[in-house]
Amino acid sequence: MRVLYHYILCPLSRKVRLTLAEKKLDFSLEQERYWEKRPAFLQINPAGDVPVLIDLNGSTVCGAYPIIEYLEEAYPERSLIGETLTQKVEVRRLMGWFDDKFARDVTMPLVMEKNLRRYMSGTTPFAPNSHVIRTAQAAINPHLDYIAWLIDRRNWLAGEQFSLADITAAAHLSIIDYLGDVPWDKHPLAKEWYMRIKSRPTFRALLQDRVPGTMPSIHYPNLDF
Amino acid sequence: MRVLYHYILCPLSRKVRLTLAEKKLDFSLEQERYWEKRPAFLQINPAGDVPVLIDLNGSTVCGAYPIIEYLEEAYPERSLIGETLTQKVEVRRLMGWFDDKFARDVTMPLVMEKNLRRYMSGTTPFAPNSHVIRTAQAAINPHLDYIAWLIDRRNWLAGEQFSLADITAAAHLSIIDYLGDVPWDKHPLAKEWYMRIKSRPTFRALLQDRVPGTMPSIHYPNLDF
Repeated sequence: MRVLYHYILCPLSRKVRLTLAEKKLDFSLEQERYWEKRPAFLQINPAGDVPVLIDLNGSTVCGAYPIIEYLEEAYPERSLIGETLTQKVEVRRLMGWFDDKFARDVTMPLVMEKNLRRYMSGTTPFAPNSHVIRTAQAAINPHLDYIAWLIDRRNWLAGEQFSLADITAAAHLSIIDYLGDVPWDKHPLAKEWYMRIKSRPTFRALLQDRVPGTMPSIHYPNLDF
Repeated sequence: MRVLYHYILCPLSRKVRLTLAEKKLDFSLEQERYWEKRPAFLQINPAGDVPVLIDLNGSTVCGAYPIIEYLEEAYPERSLIGETLTQKVEVRRLMGWFDDKFARDVTMPLVMEKNLRRYMSGTTPFAPNSHVIRTAQAAINPHLDYIAWLIDRRNWLAGEQFSLADITAAAHLSIIDYLGDVPWDKHPLAKEWYMRIKSRPTFRALLQDRVPGTMPSIHYPNLDF
């Protein structure tokens, strides 16, 4: 069986889970508390982070970027990066937008303050930084505006076809939505796009995720929110 | 003429410059002070960062990851990612190592404190944070150990062939070397590997780079250091 080492609130792990599901590739999940630097896991990935994929043939692929490109080449039946060079440039540009810019502005600070800090703070008492949280909650708005701008012009984020641009953006937003920090009411076009993704069968497993000690927002599992 | 928008101390821009040179593709450089968010540049890349490549046919490619994958596919004559799936997985894993981990530990803090902060601090007086600098200077050592570990087992970082793993690592190290913060004497194997890359003709343009207000280390342009 294919194995994916992941962390439940890691956007890169969610992106790979969705990609595997969209390509109809079976896999089992192993949650890795990567910050604990488990020696057996460091043997698999010396960088010590998730996601890591062990494919059927035993190939170990470390990191979201190598995994995504590997899956596209090893399982090309359903391409999610696009067919032409121009399409690929646009899909990869938007992957970068969300994995770099959105992650830095929104996902990383919110996941750190609301979830990871309790594990990583060691002996220091766990105290979320409310200033960091408020800054990230405000920073999400221009990103949702940008999604709306794109969706006003295209069927999906990178063009007419559903692609890894949509998967990447939805992977990040699904985490922020779990934490209850997406102001959907102020962004109807982005919401309409997200509802379309949320209702895909491949998204179902994510909606059943539960994080110990952190309840999801009430509407998190609902397709109509 | 092909145009690359870059910043002189941006490791991702240097990686693309080296890749274009290794593929023998002519290009001209446009330095972009991307933090100034020049409106005409935001029209080209709404994310507002470098590198951005305008190819001969007018294609605009934003971001190092899209540019690298684009160049590999558009100009496959000299592959720098590898031929087999296994090789590509290893090259991309090591690109991620340096662009994510090394950048976070070493390149970003040193470039920020020693160079960018003077432009980005606005009206606040420019004062490098010496604690951040010392932490980054110490953090480089395990990375140089890892390079030595790889080079003890392989001809180049990702295997027998020179690849984008070497280009990426050298792009980052060339910047830290400019700033005079690579403890080469303590890392002879990593130094031997870097000397081999530094003596490649494609590296020459980088050795002529000069940053206003920041002199390079004395040995920066020397092939024998």
